[in-house]
Amino acid sequence: MLPTVDWTADGVVMIDQRKLPGAEVYVTCRTAAEVAKAIKTMVIRGAPAIGVAAAMGLALGMKKSRATGTVKFAAEFQKACDLMASTRPTAVNLFWAIDRMKRCFGAAARAGASADEIKVRLEAEARAIHDEDVAACRAIGRFGGELVPERARILTHCNAGALATAGYGTALGVIRGAVELGRQVSVFADETRPFLQGARLTAWELTHDGIDTTVITDNMAATFMRQGLIDLVVVGADRIAANGDVANKVGTYGVAVLAREHGIPFYVAAPSSTLDLATPSGAEIPIEERPEREVTHVGTTRLTPAAAKIRNPAFDVTPARFVTAIVTERGVWRAPYEESLRQATA
Amino acid sequence: MLPTVDWTADGVVMIDQRKLPGAEVYVTCRTAAEVAKAIKTMVIRGAPAIGVAAAMGLALGMKKSRATGTVKFAAEFQKACDLMASTRPTAVNLFWAIDRMKRCFGAAARAGASADEIKVRLEAEARAIHDEDVAACRAIGRFGGELVPERARILTHCNAGALATAGYGTALGVIRGAVELGRQVSVFADETRPFLQGARLTAWELTHDGIDTTVITDNMAATFMRQGLIDLVVVGADRIAANGDVANKVGTYGVAVLAREHGIPFYVAAPSSTLDLATPSGAEIPIEERPEREVTHVGTTRLTPAAAKIRNPAFDVTPARFVTAIVTERGVWRAPYEESLRQATA
Repeated sequence: MLPTVDWTADGVVMIDQRKLPGAEVYVTCRTAAEVAKAIKTMVIRGAPAIGVAAAMGLALGMKKSRATGTVKFAAEFQKACDLMASTRPTAVNLFWAIDRMKRCFGAAARAGASADEIKVRLEAEARAIHDEDVAACRAIGRFGGELVPERARILTHCNAGALATAGYGTALGVIRGAVELGRQVSVFADETRPFLQGARLTAWELTHDGIDTTVITDNMAATFMRQGLIDLVVVGADRIAANGDVANKVGTYGVAVLAREHGIPFYVAAPSSTLDLATPSGAEIPIEERPEREVTHVGTTRLTPAAAKIRNPAFDVTPARFVTAIVTERGVWRAPYEESLRQATA
Repeated sequence: MLPTVDWTADGVVMIDQRKLPGAEVYVTCRTAAEVAKAIKTMVIRGAPAIGVAAAMGLALGMKKSRATGTVKFAAEFQKACDLMASTRPTAVNLFWAIDRMKRCFGAAARAGASADEIKVRLEAEARAIHDEDVAACRAIGRFGGELVPERARILTHCNAGALATAGYGTALGVIRGAVELGRQVSVFADETRPFLQGARLTAWELTHDGIDTTVITDNMAATFMRQGLIDLVVVGADRIAANGDVANKVGTYGVAVLAREHGIPFYVAAPSSTLDLATPSGAEIPIEERPEREVTHVGTTRLTPAAAKIRNPAFDVTPARFVTAIVTERGVWRAPYEESLRQATA
């Protein structure tokens, strides 16, 4: 199991995902602000992992607080929550985790807990969020693994793996679950420009586990589908709206359209913390636009001329009608999603 | 007009397209073998440009020949033709240009021309192929420009520009033709992994001409189409089969499927030398698989872990049913392509 994010005596420790697969460098965040910066700059990424990191960041921030009065302590907590919420807009797990930490704080405060007592509870809550995420991924793997045929060539986009979660992964959890069920699996990993999560992270994780993995550029998926080389697609999600529309890494929507064109099942794997029933449809999901440099450069190599404009939306929305099923830790959910996702969260 | 490939007293001069846009470096090929290597290693690329370079390479090779006897001279020519034909398999313009040079050679030889006389004729033929290609691109621009609405946001994939031809371009010829007709045009350029012809070459060419150009990663095209930001697609071609199936840079097929899904016209622009009526359908077009390093590295930065497999097909096939029209220097051709392409070449 790869160590994506961990709570230690020194602080919140993360593997620096910007440096993989070339180097395995661990970063220790010693303040809430350092965790927030790590999320914003993609030291850590992946919707569930961001949620876990944010929760740990809040627990860490309050642990370090010198405030003793309840009012000052609560004000610091609110400020830390606001900072964490400002890091990345699309993944709902971030806001879910912050809300959960707020509820933990509120319940403790209402029960008359001291600042020191609240610190202990926040740390326990953050650890629980971490452990529940691993458990959710394993359950996703069990449910999702059953969807995979005996021999399957699986396409995935971006990294919805151990590195995107507290461990095991969502989409890659389905792949790992299939392997554990004895399915013969090989994986095509879209490289996933611009941040190259597929080439760098998914390929690293899966080959680490001995799973047959072929990296392709994003634009090759269509021709391999047409050649009959892809049996199913599985991806993660950053936010799933009440109607089943899925926000995920940019390029997911194109893969979904192509899967439909070729009659290939398109599965989305995500924990319940990614389900956002308060958002009616994908149209209401905020889509983050990230810095141009992710597109214009790879390492120190500049790709584009200075005069060219750049767009860099980090996510897109796949309408629910392209989604064969959504796999959560509680089961496999199908259209009509308005109904099934209500059951999934009931 | 950008100098893609030129016949000079020193040899065949090309701008090194691997180094653009960072550096404008010109390479002088002094032998046929050097031209063949330049084609194979993508110093020059783009189906029409490859054809022109191959013709010039053959003329250059024979110009340098010291053979005086007709038999030895003819044997050297055949060897040079074989070398040139071995460089890249997909673009039919290469074989078209070699055949044309062979016909030129054969006609001269049958007329009793000396080696020196044949040299002169081969040089004239190569220059003619160059000049005709520029003229064809300009005609493509006139016909294709008329297809562009008054205000149009145009998506293109790879580089089918001045750099892919003797000048002016095919797909970018359509864009330039539209601009010359006074259309208000802005362009989305797919970066076109792995070789990044869009980010590096199309963006460089178009911004050089003052045309509004936005570079996006290949996987962003789908979401911009869904957002209504793309009015039409125009791409080049490496080979068009008798039934209208189009081989072009990998990723073209995916763009075509997405264009169909969003009701966006999908145009292919190519000179008649790209029409290969001897090939019945796309299934018979050989697809080049290029070195893994194009996918695994950008500059000196390694993207993928060593244990991951790589695929790198350089082209894909777009079935004719996705093609709204094919623009050649002789007009605009529509389905049924079996009939229209026969007319186009009659």
